[in-house]
This record gives sequence, structure tokens and C-alpha cells, in this order.
Amino acid sequence: MKRISDYALMAEEAIRDAGVGAGTPASLYGPIDYAMEAGGKRLRPVLMLMAADAFGDDPEKALAPAVGIELFHNFTLLHDDVMDNSATRRGRESVMAKWDVNTAILSGDTMLTQATREISKVDDKLLRNVLDRFNAMALEVYEGQRLDMDFEKMENVSPEAYIEMIQKKTGALLGCSAAIGALIGGASDKDAEALYRFGVMLGTAFQIEDDRLDTFGDPAVFGKPIGGDIRNNKQTFLMVSALARNDEDAAALRAVIALEPSDTKVKAATRIYERMEMPAVCTKAVAEYSSAAMTALKKTSLSPEKKEAFKKLVEKLTGRKK
Amino acid sequence: MKRISDYALMAEEAIRDAGVGAGTPASLYGPIDYAMEAGGKRLRPVLMLMAADAFGDDPEKALAPAVGIELFHNFTLLHDDVMDNSATRRGRESVMAKWDVNTAILSGDTMLTQATREISKVDDKLLRNVLDRFNAMALEVYEGQRLDMDFEKMENVSPEAYIEMIQKKTGALLGCSAAIGALIGGASDKDAEALYRFGVMLGTAFQIEDDRLDTFGDPAVFGKPIGGDIRNNKQTFLMVSALARNDEDAAALRAVIALEPSDTKVKAATRIYERMEMPAVCTKAVAEYSSAAMTALKKTSLSPEKKEAFKKLVEKLTGRKK
Repeated sequence: MKRISDYALMAEEAIRDAGVGAGTPASLYGPIDYAMEAGGKRLRPVLMLMAADAFGDDPEKALAPAVGIELFHNFTLLHDDVMDNSATRRGRESVMAKWDVNTAILSGDTMLTQATREISKVDDKLLRNVLDRFNAMALEVYEGQRLDMDFEKMENVSPEAYIEMIQKKTGALLGCSAAIGALIGGASDKDAEALYRFGVMLGTAFQIEDDRLDTFGDPAVFGKPIGGDIRNNKQTFLMVSALARNDEDAAALRAVIALEPSDTKVKAATRIYERMEMPAVCTKAVAEYSSAAMTALKKTSLSPEKKEAFKKLVEKLTGRKK
Repeated sequence: MKRISDYALMAEEAIRDAGVGAGTPASLYGPIDYAMEAGGKRLRPVLMLMAADAFGDDPEKALAPAVGIELFHNFTLLHDDVMDNSATRRGRESVMAKWDVNTAILSGDTMLTQATREISKVDDKLLRNVLDRFNAMALEVYEGQRLDMDFEKMENVSPEAYIEMIQKKTGALLGCSAAIGALIGGASDKDAEALYRFGVMLGTAFQIEDDRLDTFGDPAVFGKPIGGDIRNNKQTFLMVSALARNDEDAAALRAVIALEPSDTKVKAATRIYERMEMPAVCTKAVAEYSSAAMTALKKTSLSPEKKEAFKKLVEKLTGRKK
């Protein structure tokens, strides 16, 4: 097994070499080039390459599908930015802001088809299994995004409903990345299923940690302004867990939610979350889902050394220093 | 071979039975149900079923892919209506108007993935060929839509560039419907290619006829208000052919194009088109592309009786009564 940063480099090169942003007309493909060169952690291709390497010792076989899964992820970002009217992405203008809404829609559609094309570059005997999993995952992601939008209009979202939503919106894609990588590496369906579950649980832990960092993260490290979720009344694990308590603090939080966006609002909500010990609630949930990921990992037939590589990924993503 | 109306009925039933609009959450799948029940000619599934029947005498084998190709077509309509800010579709509110832009985007994305899933329901030995053709077609459709949007901002679009655009935006989908149907029926790649070309040429003729009808059609038959293209300065075969003449009439047309939308504008442009004999120019082009479709059809190994069925479809779609 290689280091995580080595898989990320492999993914980066494969994305560059795939030339998905080089077609004609440039008005369609140029924005794809822009979106795909923006970098990011390349987490999904990394997970796919790791899984292919772990089961088959040949991560190269998963390079095209790894590009495909990153294309899919970035397609969702282009469309999500339109739906959220979000002008920035990874510290730059979003495609919607740099071009326009129509470009983000149409170049996004193109990326989804390119994603399906790249994902399909697997052995004939794997094609149907891989494709079916990819399509099923995509439907879960849309369902998750739809629930996320629906939740914005709801006053009471249970923590259970919120977890279901992030498992669809974020977890399914990580699970699918891991499972397809495993299959390409020659894993049994049973091993692929276990690694799917590993990915879903890792994605859940990752999203809860991301929710915590949006309020309690180090501004120098987090990469986005702190407090954006509070400012925008975004449903987060913090908010749904706090409101579910239905006590005086929850009532105070409801009053703060009703305020217009401001620094005062961010500070007030942060103080309530602290009083309710929400950082600890998050940390506990992250630990639980990380632990569930490890339990799923243990069920695979992988050697201890290979399991260790995935464990490192969990630790890296959930901030636990072990 | 069955009658065209029988294939349309088969497609209609298959679409109903597929339950693509029945999932959860209803906020995601309900709009798909609405879009897919709206009817229309079901031209693309009809062509696929006809091709499967012609080569394999078993159109039932193409039912799921026929639903897939109709899902793809309707996905493009949902997104096109957002891009064109179009509030009506088939005499009803568009999804964008009935719900909102975000719903049209996300339910449209869902339909593209459902389309890929249904298209994939073919024999294992056909899967890669069918999927590759489907993805290549989808990219052509996006390129055509992008060119169409780019043309809106251009003063001079050559008739050749316009034909290339409609062959991508409309022709490729008809070609792909025919080719995949043929493959499912057991056709050779050579026959599938010939039928692909048949579909592209048919689609080209069909689009030019549609352009003519938008200005010169019978309001009682056309189904949309006459003159909409003139009103909105839409590039059509009429407009690009007329402007390409670069004579006094073309100059007069340019002046009319600069006017605000009004009944006067529609009448003035119509009169110029008549003086330039544009209806005859269209009719000639429709005849040429219909003839090219028939030439492609002749190159297939189909029996004369089966070729006759496809010929009837050409005549039906291009209004030629033979």
C-alpha cells in the first residue's frame, strides 16, 4: 500500500491526463476544465485507488473509474452551487458565478455523462455490477440533496432523519468509491459490501466533523469562514441535536435562529452550543461512526497491514490523532 | 411490424409500468411522474421499438431501454426549460414553473441516471456497446444545446453550422434510439450504423420542418402559438438561410429582428420569408434530408416490407403525403 498522499497524486495525474475539459465547444468543456483543476482532497478517487490496491495490488486498473467518481462529485458541486446560489467554491468563484447558471447546469450534465463513461472503463465481467452500484449511488445522492433542501423549510428535523440525509448525500458516494475500487481489485461481493459500509460510516463521521468545524474549527485550518452554517440557518448535526433536546437552551437557540445573519448571531448560537456541550456531542458521534467504519473494515478479508492503511484514512479525516 | 401507433402504445404502457416517478422523497420523484405522464409523440421509444422489431421480431426486449431513451429526452426538456426560462411545455406548466428551478435541475439529474439505468437493461454481451453509444449521444446533445445557446449571441450563423447544431441536439438522439433498438434486435454493427444515420437524417428533416411550421404551420394543428421563434429571435433554418443571402431582403430581416417582440414583428418577418420563398427552401431541405434518411435505410439488410415501415415514419414526421 502507498501513502494517502501518493494515491492523491495518482488521482491528480489521471484527472489531468483524462482531458475531460478539452472538448469542443470550449464554452461547454472549458468550465469542466476549470472545475476539475481546482484540486481539493480527491478523497473519493483516493479511496477507490486504495481499495483497488488493497484487494488487487494494481491501483492503475482503477484510474479511469477514479476520474469518473471525481467527475461525479464535481458535477454535484456545480449543480449544488446553483441550487444554493453559492458564488464561491474552494476559495475561487464557482462555475455559476464565473460563467452563469446555464453553464453550470449544462457543463454539470456533461460531467455526469463523462463520469458514467469513465466509471464504465472496467473489465467486461465487472461492468454491470460496477454500473449498477454507480447508478444506485447517484440516486441516493440526489435523494440526499433533495432531503437537505426540504429540511431547510422544516422547523424540526430529528437527528435520525439528519443522519439518514447525510448518509445518502455524502456517505453513499464514499461507500460506492470504496466498493467499486474493491471490485476492480478482485474483491468478493461480500468484501465489497463491507467496504461500502466502511465508506458510508466514514462519510457520516466526516460530515459530522465538518459540521463541528464550521462552528468550532480553527479559521486558519478550516479553509472556509467560521460560522457560515449558523449565519445561513443551515441544518447541521449541531442544530438538529440541540433542537431535539427541547429544553430552555433549545428555545434560546430557536430565538437566535430567527435573527438576521450577523456576527452577533454567530456568537450567540456558538455560546448556546457550548453551554449544551455540543462539541462533545459531535466528537462522541464522530467516534461512534468512525468505530462503525472500523467494525465494517474488520469484516473484510484484508490483511492487518492493509486494514491499517484504511484506519489511517479514518484518523486523517476525522481529525483524531489516535 | 406493427403500426406506429401500436409502438407508441407499447412505449406508453412501459413508461407507466416502470414507476420512475414513484420513489421517495416525493419532492424528488413526483416531478418526474408529472413530466413522464405528459405524453407527447414518444417518437424516440417508437423508433427504438421499431428497430428492435425489424431486426429481431421481439420489440419487448427493448422496452426498458425505450423507457430509458424517453427519460433521457425528458431530462433534457426539464433542463432546457430552465435554460430557456420557459414556463410551458406540451400545453402545461413546465416543471420549473410548477415547482421551481432547483426541482427541475435535481429531478432532471435523477432522470438522467434513471435513463442510464434503464438503457443498461440489455443482454450482457450488448451492454458495453449500448452504453458507449448512449453516452456518446448524450455528449453530442449537450454540445448541440451549448451551440444553440452560443448561437443566440451571434449575428451570423451559417446554415452549415446550424445544421451541425441540430444534428447534435436533435439528430443524435433519434440516431441513437434507432441504433440501440437495432442492436437489441440482433443487428450487425454495420446495420446499426446505417440505422443511426437514418435517425440523424430523419431528425434533421424533422427539425427543419418544425422550424417551418413555427412560422407557416396551421395553428389548429401545430400545438404551439405560431410565430414564437420570430418573436424570440430564435435561430431557425428560416433565419440562418435568409440571412446567409446577404441581399436586400436579408437586410430588411435584420431590421425586423432588431424590433421588440410584437404581432407586427411576426407579420413583417413572415412577409419577408415569403418574399424570399423560404417555405420552399425549407421544403426542399426537408426532402433532401428525408431522402438521405431513405438512402441510409436502403443500406441496411432489412426486407423491403420492413423498410416500408420506416419510410412511413419519415413521411409521418415530415408531413409528406407521398
